[in-house]
Amino acid sequence: MLQSQLFTKTRKEAPKDESSKNAQLLTRAGFIHKEMAGVYTFLPLGLRVIERIKDIIREELNNIGAHEMKMTALQQKDIWEKSGRWDDEVVDDWFKTPLKNGTELGLAFTHEEVLTNIMKNYISSYKDVPVYAYQFQTKFRNELRAKSGILRGREFLMKDLYDFSLDKEEHDKFYEKMKEVYMSIFTKTGIGEQTYLTMSSGGSFSKYSFEFQTITDAGEDIIMYDENKKIAINKDDYSEEIFDDFGLKKTEFNFKEAKSVEVGDIYTLGEKYSKALGLTYKDENGEEKNVYMGSYGIGIPRLMGTIVEIFSDEKGIIWPKSVAPFDVHLIDLAQQQQAKQIYESLQENGVDVLLDDRQLRPGEKFADSDLIGIPIRIVISKKSLDQGGVEVKNRNSEESQIMSPQALIEFIKEL
Amino acid sequence: MLQSQLFTKTRKEAPKDESSKNAQLLTRAGFIHKEMAGVYTFLPLGLRVIERIKDIIREELNNIGAHEMKMTALQQKDIWEKSGRWDDEVVDDWFKTPLKNGTELGLAFTHEEVLTNIMKNYISSYKDVPVYAYQFQTKFRNELRAKSGILRGREFLMKDLYDFSLDKEEHDKFYEKMKEVYMSIFTKTGIGEQTYLTMSSGGSFSKYSFEFQTITDAGEDIIMYDENKKIAINKDDYSEEIFDDFGLKKTEFNFKEAKSVEVGDIYTLGEKYSKALGLTYKDENGEEKNVYMGSYGIGIPRLMGTIVEIFSDEKGIIWPKSVAPFDVHLIDLAQQQQAKQIYESLQENGVDVLLDDRQLRPGEKFADSDLIGIPIRIVISKKSLDQGGVEVKNRNSEESQIMSPQALIEFIKEL
Repeated sequence: MLQSQLFTKTRKEAPKDESSKNAQLLTRAGFIHKEMAGVYTFLPLGLRVIERIKDIIREELNNIGAHEMKMTALQQKDIWEKSGRWDDEVVDDWFKTPLKNGTELGLAFTHEEVLTNIMKNYISSYKDVPVYAYQFQTKFRNELRAKSGILRGREFLMKDLYDFSLDKEEHDKFYEKMKEVYMSIFTKTGIGEQTYLTMSSGGSFSKYSFEFQTITDAGEDIIMYDENKKIAINKDDYSEEIFDDFGLKKTEFNFKEAKSVEVGDIYTLGEKYSKALGLTYKDENGEEKNVYMGSYGIGIPRLMGTIVEIFSDEKGIIWPKSVAPFDVHLIDLAQQQQAKQIYESLQENGVDVLLDDRQLRPGEKFADSDLIGIPIRIVISKKSLDQGGVEVKNRNSEESQIMSPQALIEFIKEL
Repeated sequence: MLQSQLFTKTRKEAPKDESSKNAQLLTRAGFIHKEMAGVYTFLPLGLRVIERIKDIIREELNNIGAHEMKMTALQQKDIWEKSGRWDDEVVDDWFKTPLKNGTELGLAFTHEEVLTNIMKNYISSYKDVPVYAYQFQTKFRNELRAKSGILRGREFLMKDLYDFSLDKEEHDKFYEKMKEVYMSIFTKTGIGEQTYLTMSSGGSFSKYSFEFQTITDAGEDIIMYDENKKIAINKDDYSEEIFDDFGLKKTEFNFKEAKSVEVGDIYTLGEKYSKALGLTYKDENGEEKNVYMGSYGIGIPRLMGTIVEIFSDEKGIIWPKSVAPFDVHLIDLAQQQQAKQIYESLQENGVDVLLDDRQLRPGEKFADSDLIGIPIRIVISKKSLDQGGVEVKNRNSEESQIMSPQALIEFIKEL
């Protein structure tokens, strides 16, 4: 993409009403625009990051035989009454809105009930399970406050996956697999090192459950974590009891305390929703049984915001390669034909390039580049051309090297 | 994809509450699930079609320098008050919903105001225009009735593009280009022959505007069209006056009447929104001017539903190749290793294949295949193997031919 054609511009100052680092940097760099607290438009650069994160997740989920679909925001109350979650006293973050005829609808904050109801059309025999289905879909949550930028949204894109299993055993196996899949997703998006599988209290279906917590000062949670054993416990649940229940010896661990963001949660739902909505199958003996379920969520903007919280410095964002809006930021200071040639040959080699072809001072271009945070910067200047090529530098390093255009293509392709 | 792993199943009968052909066929074949009138979940097969349509549109729009972004559903009233569209008496299909603190929000039915407001951050000089931005985003419309399946949604995915131009002249040029782009999109999705650039009354910004109408009995509109001159007039506006205004001689045309669906609309907005929201730029003389705008919409499910209305027979859907959920339906009647081998080698050659590996009678498999409507069917049976290969047949033809597996790959790759 030519930067001269990108309609967004960077700004030096963060908006006054943004106190979170993620929203400040993402707004200044032109990735997002705030409509209201917790409600953000994703501008072209921001949408590119969202799509790269989705691609990483999609690949992992398709690999384990999950199928992508897309459910709706608008909800009729009947299926939610069956599970007991329609009442505003039970779920306090519903948005509700009336149809023309006065019927009250809800805007889905999650989709357990909806998908359970859909599966009644397709699951009737033990042969029909397991089913793994997921979506990238907009969730609506009427949060009282939303002050953490894109870490907590009133409207946000969520990946939610649901498993419909034969029984606890089959579900448990999948649940264990999802622990690995989630860790792989977080590793691939660049936050593996900071992310811990974390034990916490389990809600209504089991005594304990697991969540994925990523250490950052922007977090609203606190975890106790062991860096070497790569395990953590939500501080709220850190007790003698949890050690006993998991058969762990406290003395064998070296726990430290840190603020963290919950970037993913994986729940065993058991038969709660299948029972409430009547999702059953006939087993081999013709006996009617409830489907055994689980749900697995990742808030996409929250993941993106967490990455920004971790990977940034005083100059701006430093995107991990895997989720960067572009692979390469090509900065043309020479205003010569050569920049366009390199731009085109990189693109022909499958490299996503943002070419800064604007007529600005070098300092302004470098400042914008640091703020936007594309991991590799290539500068074409009179000086670099005199030295035989282009100057290549990583966003997170001060060192640079001169490469010939041919060597550059090889270098980038190998990354 | 293995059909044994696809969780949806076909059904012989259409749901009783669906009177439209598109919803009947798409539901029976497992593409969609109805949540309520005008609100549909897209199941895995359905989502694949949506994504293929999006890819066709995205490529066309990126080619003309438009940038993809994503705005939000939740809306604060202030910007809509500025344009005079917040009032329910002005816009009668708003969904509105209160925040916890009582503030009323709207669910966007379109995004002119929102994007105009965003552009105030980025457009200030004549050098900043033109800007072309688009999104695929969920629109909410509180329709009194919604009886046409996915042709008219209360919640639906829309592609909406907006141009921000220097003046009427620059906008008009882009508007003409968009006529071509839209016709190219409809041609690529398979409905070019049935789709007419149609003159109609122009709303508040100009005396006339253009829309794209596709001839089908499922349509709610009526057009007068000339098959040879490939032009149409909305019947509501078919008058001596429109002929005079466009300088056309009625006697030179041979107009017929037909029901049609409006699959796309292209509007000149002029300065209405830029003026209301204060989106201005300084021209070369330092004079403050209003940005000149247009908007361009395509409802994605409506386009998908229109395709189904046109391309189907008594057995089911007949997808155009470009938007089919899979390129090839491979039907294994021999239950031998060969089917898997062909499945894999087709996939390695970039062909999207649905392999019917289920243990069902041939008649059931063929009926399902006809209903789902993948354009090319390949049957592997004992008989075809005895004859030296596989049987290849188009969905919309009765003729078939036997091919060796090697010849098959070449044949498919050439399509």
